[in-house]
Order: sequence, then C-alpha cells, then structure tokens
Amino acid sequence: MAILERTDTGAVAHLRMNAPERLNALSDTMLAALKSEFETLSDQPQIRAVVLSGAGKAFCAGHDLKEMTAGRQAEDGGKAYFHDLFERCGALMMAIRALPQPVIAAPHGIATAAGCQLVASCDLAIAATGTRFGVNGVNIGLFCSTPMVALSRNIGRKQAFEMLTTGSFIDTDRAEALGLINRAVPAENLEAEAIALATTIAGKLGAAVRIGKEAFYKQSEMSLADAYAYTGDVMVQNMLWRDTEEGISAFIEKRLPKWEQ
Amino acid sequence: MAILERTDTGAVAHLRMNAPERLNALSDTMLAALKSEFETLSDQPQIRAVVLSGAGKAFCAGHDLKEMTAGRQAEDGGKAYFHDLFERCGALMMAIRALPQPVIAAPHGIATAAGCQLVASCDLAIAATGTRFGVNGVNIGLFCSTPMVALSRNIGRKQAFEMLTTGSFIDTDRAEALGLINRAVPAENLEAEAIALATTIAGKLGAAVRIGKEAFYKQSEMSLADAYAYTGDVMVQNMLWRDTEEGISAFIEKRLPKWEQ
Amino acid sequence: MAILERTDTGAVAHLRMNAPERLNALSDTMLAALKSEFETLSDQPQIRAVVLSGAGKAFCAGHDLKEMTAGRQAEDGGKAYFHDLFERCGALMMAIRALPQPVIAAPHGIATAAGCQLVASCDLAIAATGTRFGVNGVNIGLFCSTPMVALSRNIGRKQAFEMLTTGSFIDTDRAEALGLINRAVPAENLEAEAIALATTIAGKLGAAVRIGKEAFYKQSEMSLADAYAYTGDVMVQNMLWRDTEEGISAFIEKRLPKWEQ
Repeated sequence: MAILERTDTGAVAHLRMNAPERLNALSDTMLAALKSEFETLSDQPQIRAVVLSGAGKAFCAGHDLKEMTAGRQAEDGGKAYFHDLFERCGALMMAIRALPQPVIAAPHGIATAAGCQLVASCDLAIAATGTRFGVNGVNIGLFCSTPMVALSRNIGRKQAFEMLTTGSFIDTDRAEALGLINRAVPAENLEAEAIALATTIAGKLGAAVRIGKEAFYKQSEMSLADAYAYTGDVMVQNMLWRDTEEGISAFIEKRLPKWEQ
Repeated sequence: MAILERTDTGAVAHLRMNAPERLNALSDTMLAALKSEFETLSDQPQIRAVVLSGAGKAFCAGHDLKEMTAGRQAEDGGKAYFHDLFERCGALMMAIRALPQPVIAAPHGIATAAGCQLVASCDLAIAATGTRFGVNGVNIGLFCSTPMVALSRNIGRKQAFEMLTTGSFIDTDRAEALGLINRAVPAENLEAEAIALATTIAGKLGAAVRIGKEAFYKQSEMSLADAYAYTGDVMVQNMLWRDTEEGISAFIEKRLPKWEQ
Repeated sequence: MAILERTDTGAVAHLRMNAPERLNALSDTMLAALKSEFETLSDQPQIRAVVLSGAGKAFCAGHDLKEMTAGRQAEDGGKAYFHDLFERCGALMMAIRALPQPVIAAPHGIATAAGCQLVASCDLAIAATGTRFGVNGVNIGLFCSTPMVALSRNIGRKQAFEMLTTGSFIDTDRAEALGLINRAVPAENLEAEAIALATTIAGKLGAAVRIGKEAFYKQSEMSLADAYAYTGDVMVQNMLWRDTEEGISAFIEKRLPKWEQ
C-alpha cells in the first residue's frame, strides 16, 4: 500500500494519507509523498479541486516523534536534520496555498500539532463531527510554533493563544464557531461530503478559480490600496477571457454557459 | 427620479440607490452618482453619519453585466473600459472608508458580488432579516477578486474562500455570526433602524468620530508599535479640543456637555 | 494598602489593582505600579503565568479623568502631560505582550476605555459573567483611539467600529462570541478559575511557553513566508533543549517527563 493514496473522480483528486498505524504522522516519507503529489497536481489543470483525508482512526497526529528522536543521533544533536525537517514541513504548507486548485481538508478523529496545521493550511475544511483539534506540543515541551502560523491566520488571537499554551483540544462545534473549519458532517459522510464540495468547485470555470485562489492570498498581505490595484488588474484579465464572455452572455440570455476549458 | 436619492434628517444623510429595475446595479451612472455624493458629503461637516440603502427588491446585485458586455465592442475588446471600471469601483469603496462620516449599509433582498463588497466596505451594516449575501461571480466565470478585498477584511479566511469559490449565499444569521453585518432587523424597520443607529452616532462629538474613523483604518495596517505611536498622537490632539475638555468636565460634574461643534 | 497587590501561588503571580474608590482607573500611580511590577516579573523566570484582576466593583474604568483634567493646568494646556501619559499607557500595553509569561485578564463589573484595552492587551481573558465591556470615550468627546489598537486586534472590524462610535457596551456572551474573552465564569469563581488556567499553563515547560509567546506576536506581523522561516528556527532551537528531548522521550515511553527547568 502506498503511504499516500490518490483516487481521481472526474476533476477531483482525493488524497488519503495512509499510515494508520502511525496516525498518519508527517514522517519524512509522508512529507515527501505529499510534496511530490502536490507538485504533480500543480501540473494537472484537468484536476480542479483536491480533497485531503486520512485513513484509520485519525486524520493526522503531527510530526513523527520517533523519527525526530532518531534524528538526535547525528553529531550535531539533530540540528541540521530538524532545520531541514521544519523547512520541508513549512514548504509543504505553503505549497498547499500555492497550488492552483483549492484543497479541502477532511479531518476525522484527531488533527493535532502539524496535523492541525495541515487543516488550517488547506483552503477549506469539512470535518467529521467529533473530530478533536489541538496544537498540543506544549504538553511535551515543544511549543507548536510553526502550526501557529497557520492557526493564527484562521482563528482569533486569544483563542489561538489558549490552544497553544494549554495544549487543550477543541471539538467540531468550537472549531466551526472559531473559523478553523467550514462545517462538520457525520463521520460516515465525511469523504462523500468533501468530494461533493470539491465537485461543486470543480464545476466552476477552472481558470477563474485558479486566478482567484492566487489573488485571495496575495491580496491578504497587502494594504487596501495595493490590494485594489492588484485585484483590479486580475478582474480585467479575467473579463477578457473568451470563457468569461460566454459565461456572462449565457447568464444574460438565461442559458447554461458552454465553456471551452 | 434620480438614480441616487438623498434625504437628510438632521445630521444624518440617507442615500438610497434607485434603479430597482436593474437591482441597483453599479452601472457607470450609479458609480458616478455615488462618487459624486460621497465627494459632496466629505465637504459637509454638518452631516455626521450616512445610511446607504437600495430601492426595490434588492440592495445591489453588483456590476451591470449588460453594460460590461457592451464595453466589449471597443477595439481592444473592452480592456481599457474594464480597467477604468474596476478602478472607479475600487476608488468608490476606498472613498467610503476615507469619508469623514461613518457609513452604515442597510441591505435587503440580495447583496451580491460588488453589492456584497459595498456592504463589506461600509463601516457598519444593518440588514433586513432574510437578506442573502454572495460573491457569486465565479458562477458565470468571473471570480469576485475585487469584492474579496473588502470581504476578507470582514470575515474569516475559510468562510470567505468558500463563498468565493462555490458562489453560495449566506443568510443574515450567518452573516452576523461571521462578522459581515452588525445585526439583522425585520425588513419593515430596516431604514428606520439604520437611521436610528446613524442618529446615535451623529449625537456624538463630530470631530471625535471623524478623527477616530480615520485612525481606525490607518492603524489597522500598522505594526503594534507604530499603531500606538500614531494613535497616541491622535489622543493628544483629541484631548486638546475645547469640546473634549467640556465633555470630560460635564462627565465629572454629572451634567450634559455643551458642545460648540 | 498598595495600589497594586501581588500574591504568588507557586509559579503563578496574581496582580490585583486596588483603587476601588476610583474603579481602578489607570492613574499615573496605577500605571507606574503596573509598569514596575511587569518589569519585576520579566526578571522572575520562576513565575510562569500572571493573572490580572481588580478589587471592588469594577475591573478598570480606564484613564483617571480627574487627573487628566488637572493636567490641563500646565502652560501648554496639558499637551506635554497627555503625550507622556499616552506614551506610558501604550508602553504598558506593549509590556504585557513583551512579558515572557502569559497574562490572563480576569475582569468583572466593567472594563471600559483603557480598561477594555487592558483586557484586549492580555494574552487571555476570563471574565465574570455579566461583565460589561465598552470603548465609550466617544460619549464624552474623547474617541478611544489607543484602546482600539488592542480591541481591533481581538475582534472583527464592524463589531469594533460599532463599539467605538456608539459607545455602547457588550456583555460577556457577546464578548466571548466576538473573541474579546476566552470565556465567562460565575463571579464567585472568577479569580479561582483564572488562577487555575494560569496554573495549567505554569505546569508546562516554561522555556517553551516563553519562546512560544514571543513567536506568537512576532509572526503575526510577518508575511506567511517570513513567518515560516522565523518559526522554523524557533522550532529547531526548541527541539535542541535537553528538557524537550526528555519531554518527547517521556511521551514515547508513556511516562511523565522529568524537567530540569
């Protein structure tokens, strides 16, 4: 069995992390598999949305602590390995944001530490009711400093700070209220619902979603004036596409658009 | 009938978009009327708060798609026109923020695409219960890239991303929970409630609201240290006004202030 | 009685503002006492979490208006004094953020103007049910420009704007929903619950909480890429500590860690 399974349904790619005996920890192998698959996806415009879930009892329990502990055996006490590890992990999280396609996290069971970061880093998240989320590294003396980068860009300041410093978990009701997930669904429907949402997005004009996702994050780091100057240009570009002209004409003529892309 | 009606009640100006047959679309004429009225208001210190509502079935359905389609007839396929259009539209949204007076959006029916952006761009929003909000341009192949600039500065990241990529609508309960509106009121009370809120604000010291609104947005784009340095200066300035001295004295003496402004 | 009482319980310092006859106003003396105590705490690594509450009927009603009015008697109408006052006040708020230990606000009664800012500036907040929060300076002609720096970094834009321009109060249900506080507890349990939360945090590895708190705010003002580069380095540093090695080993071996710090 591959450590990362991929199943395509039409324009939707479903990635399922498959190391249930390790609660889908982000081991070196898992990180490499995810990185490789996202690279592949970035060159597959026929895929328009991605679902990321986990096999077994949990979505993802974060880094692989045994592997990290083994890394300490190096002469430098693991320094070079850890540096490389967090660089690869951060690069993966940024790759999700840079991917042309929207990525929907579909967590269940638990999503902790870098596993919670993975949920926060995806564009959207639908969770199985009862999933528990935590950035609980502080409990073992390792503050979740990189997970907080993603978490604090999803939820409020005091709420993120409490999770980070107490190591306490939140449930799906709280995760939805805080903004970490879009909604929760019964566990038995989880992957089906995530794929349904992906299919809805995949039914839109692919180029529009692509240019929109890129602009979404770019403008979020700009001043208001810069954001308007930049997105104004994006709108002009979008308006000049043949398919957008057809989309607008179809709307005015009350018919379905015939898109080439 | 003017495309934009203005009715002043004391220190409150009520602007009502009045192109109900076009769902108050932001046509060239509507954009120009709004721009002109906001310019006028910026020179009318006797007006201390503004309400913006729409006549007919909907608050505002976004850009005028027929006019945009007509714009394609130019030799450049509409490029110059579109560029100018989004520049004017972005300038309008920034003019609301730059206006000395607080602006309260009072949407009803639907507020979609640039209409939703208008709600997000106002300082405050009171909606008729049942109003539906969407940034649904993606449904016709035109991603709501400029509306998302305003929307993403009002609501959480994953929630904004879902609206933008699925084109789905949210109701007033959800809009209030996410932060897009301050609250919803029964449709029959909408304008009265918005005017009541405006009247409350208009009853404060005008200069204080003015300096405060300007500082609110400026500091939001600063680091914490810069924000404190800047707003500290604003506080000093505010403290030195004769009317503020009177306001504080009146409070200490448990009487109503007599303001000159 | 000191204007600021400090009681240590184990690794938790409990500061209680004690000028109940002035609703614990941030007078020159109170500001100086808080500043001094936070300076002391920053050099006391044996203290791992701090609770800040107020004696009497209210947590804190903001600046001392009588003192400010007296300040006007200077030749410059108070300009130099006000400048210095807001500088000291902003410095105090930033000192809370810069403090190595997490600070938990425990407001009750009212927390208004700079008192509300104090709640917003703390890392966490547990309030007595029924506490009322406001940035109501606008009612006396003094816009809460410095409090809004902290408030607008805790809650949504339109919600902050409404509080600032109407001077209206919110209750604990609303404060929790907006993100200004972590939760509310019955008044009779307030200090006990705040100390319990502080004790939970104090039970974690102190160095991890310290490096994490610093990183939390630093990364919040960075771009995503910069934030990952910076926090990646923080993780490496954290991983190389002896105590973290022990924490991870203990977790793998299913035993309690023996920390030196």
